[in-house]
Amino acid sequence: MESSDVVIVGGIACGPKTAAVLARRNSQTKITLFQKEAHLSTASCGMPWLASGDLAGPGVLTETQYGVTRDVNFFRDTKGFTAHLGAEVKAINRESKTVTVRMASGETVEHGYGKLVLATGATPKEAPFPVPESPLVQTFHTLDDAAHFRKLAEQGKVGRAVVIGAGFIGVELIGALGDLWGIETTIVEAEDRLLPYVLDTDMSAILHRHLQAQDVVFHRRAKVKGIDLAPDGSPVVSIDGVGKVETDYVFICLGVRPNVALARDCGLEIGATGAISVNEYMQTSDPNIYAGGDCVETMNRITGEKFYIPMGSLANRHGWVIADHIDGGSIPYNGAVGAFIVKVGELNVATVGLTQAAAEKAGYAPDAVWGTYSDRPTYFMEHDDIVCKLVYRPDNLCLLGLQVVGRGDVCRRADVFSAFLYHASTIKDLFDHEHAYAPPFSEALDPLYHLACQAMAQQRGVVFESPDFDSGDAGTQWLDVREEDEIKAEPLPESAAPEERQWLVIPIGELRGRLGELDPEKPVRIICARGPRSYQAAVVLRQNGFKNVTIIGGGLHALKE
Amino acid sequence: MESSDVVIVGGIACGPKTAAVLARRNSQTKITLFQKEAHLSTASCGMPWLASGDLAGPGVLTETQYGVTRDVNFFRDTKGFTAHLGAEVKAINRESKTVTVRMASGETVEHGYGKLVLATGATPKEAPFPVPESPLVQTFHTLDDAAHFRKLAEQGKVGRAVVIGAGFIGVELIGALGDLWGIETTIVEAEDRLLPYVLDTDMSAILHRHLQAQDVVFHRRAKVKGIDLAPDGSPVVSIDGVGKVETDYVFICLGVRPNVALARDCGLEIGATGAISVNEYMQTSDPNIYAGGDCVETMNRITGEKFYIPMGSLANRHGWVIADHIDGGSIPYNGAVGAFIVKVGELNVATVGLTQAAAEKAGYAPDAVWGTYSDRPTYFMEHDDIVCKLVYRPDNLCLLGLQVVGRGDVCRRADVFSAFLYHASTIKDLFDHEHAYAPPFSEALDPLYHLACQAMAQQRGVVFESPDFDSGDAGTQWLDVREEDEIKAEPLPESAAPEERQWLVIPIGELRGRLGELDPEKPVRIICARGPRSYQAAVVLRQNGFKNVTIIGGGLHALKE
Repeated sequence: MESSDVVIVGGIACGPKTAAVLARRNSQTKITLFQKEAHLSTASCGMPWLASGDLAGPGVLTETQYGVTRDVNFFRDTKGFTAHLGAEVKAINRESKTVTVRMASGETVEHGYGKLVLATGATPKEAPFPVPESPLVQTFHTLDDAAHFRKLAEQGKVGRAVVIGAGFIGVELIGALGDLWGIETTIVEAEDRLLPYVLDTDMSAILHRHLQAQDVVFHRRAKVKGIDLAPDGSPVVSIDGVGKVETDYVFICLGVRPNVALARDCGLEIGATGAISVNEYMQTSDPNIYAGGDCVETMNRITGEKFYIPMGSLANRHGWVIADHIDGGSIPYNGAVGAFIVKVGELNVATVGLTQAAAEKAGYAPDAVWGTYSDRPTYFMEHDDIVCKLVYRPDNLCLLGLQVVGRGDVCRRADVFSAFLYHASTIKDLFDHEHAYAPPFSEALDPLYHLACQAMAQQRGVVFESPDFDSGDAGTQWLDVREEDEIKAEPLPESAAPEERQWLVIPIGELRGRLGELDPEKPVRIICARGPRSYQAAVVLRQNGFKNVTIIGGGLHALKE
Repeated sequence: MESSDVVIVGGIACGPKTAAVLARRNSQTKITLFQKEAHLSTASCGMPWLASGDLAGPGVLTETQYGVTRDVNFFRDTKGFTAHLGAEVKAINRESKTVTVRMASGETVEHGYGKLVLATGATPKEAPFPVPESPLVQTFHTLDDAAHFRKLAEQGKVGRAVVIGAGFIGVELIGALGDLWGIETTIVEAEDRLLPYVLDTDMSAILHRHLQAQDVVFHRRAKVKGIDLAPDGSPVVSIDGVGKVETDYVFICLGVRPNVALARDCGLEIGATGAISVNEYMQTSDPNIYAGGDCVETMNRITGEKFYIPMGSLANRHGWVIADHIDGGSIPYNGAVGAFIVKVGELNVATVGLTQAAAEKAGYAPDAVWGTYSDRPTYFMEHDDIVCKLVYRPDNLCLLGLQVVGRGDVCRRADVFSAFLYHASTIKDLFDHEHAYAPPFSEALDPLYHLACQAMAQQRGVVFESPDFDSGDAGTQWLDVREEDEIKAEPLPESAAPEERQWLVIPIGELRGRLGELDPEKPVRIICARGPRSYQAAVVLRQNGFKNVTIIGGGLHALKE
């Protein structure tokens, strides 16, 4: 029986990373990797752009930066370990420390291990409704899935598509479908919003408006009852309350579940999330067996609870930690805060930590502030807006989460915020953040600084804000404090003026002199372009005895995008 | 005699910020601001783009985002405080708590204060060589300076320019001069490199090569002896060892010194840096007198020493802290790590914390690692390289500094690194950084992760690296591990092969099989495109008994840019 010091099951991200780091550390370690599929180390996060036709072909997702295919030869010659493709590990025998493998040849062999690494990944969740066997109704999980769709699109066979599920893959696909193929797209989601687990309803609404502007149809709170095939083979999606939607192609994007069968069958501990339970060195309940990547659960650094966060970036990191520990090191994997980013059409969406909804669910009684900021000085040639929502704990000012949506640079703020969340920082720390400032890159005061100041003001009881046109009490006086020229150039949208609502216009510079036009006994709700003037106006009103003053957080720019 | 609760001296950044925050906190506080110059609250960081003609005119630098000029009326009506322009404070009388002010009318008045805020800013350093009175020999410090130059450039009167001083303003100007006016530019610097206080020689060399490619002449270690005027009025710059350089315009950019005369004259403590000494609430040695902005010194959070860091972004922050403290708050200003960014031509340059040279000077015996990374996946449509240098303490792995230069996104990494430096973090913390990953924005593994891994490998004694072609010992075997196709497309530059140096080419995938072509007793120095393959090759060689192996950190991409 052949035997290796380290046997690795899975060949996409965590597996090859573990093997490569180990081989660098010690060329004497015998490492064998078994990969069930035909590809190794595929950059599957690039699939939406393979589907869209932006990428030349699937090859670029399996090549190194310098154009060499990451195949068995590459891993042997360059990385120093042995990989077997089409080799499915069928069972783990913990007592004998062997795995049973069905090799590509069809032969079944036993292979001994010193340490075993499970990097078995994840599989698309099964649909809770009937799905017919059809090449036109597919998940979007492998390079083959992407290549299959692309071929049909190139042949002009897809004029309409339905995406079921508005998670990351679903919304990324929508961008790809609309942009490059001009496909009429419908997206269906059981929850009330796009990206429901990482965006609050208010921030998700910005994305929704953007997709509406591109004629994407979004059915929310929509339950798919089933998919049928028309006589010509076209899929027909039946949606509760909507009816039947005929289409040319259906993507089923309901998220993934961890592949834990091997682990469960040999008695390893599975966590409450359904993924494999591991300690900080990525060891399972059997210290000779490690697990990493999309098959394990992760400690959430904010809540201290376990969560399931399948991400290629984290899988690579797990691989490094596993290799280090097998090599005698002790650098832990310290959990995750959850940092996500996605591009949907022209909009960039980033989100880190907990949403307000998630924070409430976790029992924090969070507060939130909103703001719209230019990512560079507005006097500068190029600049774009970003809309931010900061979620924090009012009891100890600890940061909980940040959502950023806009055409501007959202990624920088997400990455910085992630660094603060990692350190369990507070609003005061965020206030202290020293960003690199020059006009081609940034404003003198960073959005994160403004958000910290707003949160501190909120805690001094200055003003309550929410980013919508809906929350006025009866008798509310609606006040627009922008300049007349601005209002002409950017009038309020129809949604701002339902029924009998009248907007009073008083530019901020005139407010102190025109207080008599407002009744201090009645509520006032204020808007400006991005938020700061509303805040300034609210302060002036409160200083003059107005008791019930609220502002539209983020201003008009957060509501029109 | 008139008297105010708070008197503020200076009207650019810290002063107006203090006043505006205070007025929002309490409308009863009487606030009076005296500004010597004719403008208030100018965005002077935008001046290089005013000079270059990118901006429509000086107006945009004195307007709000919504097009209202930040003048005396604006601050009175919108921000709620009184400002006097052309009003120079001549003396502070601490016993009587008054200031003596020469008003714009010419009248001199006494004005009483409860609290006094000094935001007196900075002035260009005087040249240590003779400078003639001429409209063609100027500093670059005020909007008027920028408008003056722009007018001459627009009239076609500036075909050649000399910039004396390669600090931030100097290198920003070079970008402006070359890009838009096509001016032949010479830059002169006493130190051995561009941006000498924030870049090490190796990283500064990238910038130098970029400017050379744009035909900018750079005289380093060059002492200006003086400036004369030719009979036609053209300036002539005499440089030791270079000779006389005739030109049409001279910018003197020798940095700034804090304006401390008022403070010194009334006996306030001046620090060893020459700037006003303040505590964490920005109070001077007289608790009734605060100071902030470019006239104060700041605690360096890395070294614990005071340093002088005049930045508009920090000045605004000082203003907030001062206002909060006067209002009874106690949120401190916790010092700075030094985060800078600048655009020079097509290159972005960011630097945070200490350079290796500065760290050595501070007594840390630092180590450093280098790397060239693509800011997004190379399979993606748009991506650019960035070259990074990480400086850290080998004794405790504490982070000390980061320098990033390239056409790619340098700002994000600088801002994130600043957040880690703020928290006095280590290499292991940086390894844990969870960035937001999706192909349009980032790689699965962030450059900061790679740098952290390299530093850990360096500490395990794996490999020594430095980013140059100079550091081979006698008998060194120079090894290029790139693919043949790559080498054809990007041959090594001439500087890589002085005299008799021969490069051996062995693509990384063939190295294990071709070890016989190298002598394990002699030094080997390795290059690839960006660095990772050199590292991989070095590991293979060491595993096979090679003792003296070094790599060219950052690879060819760091040396050719």
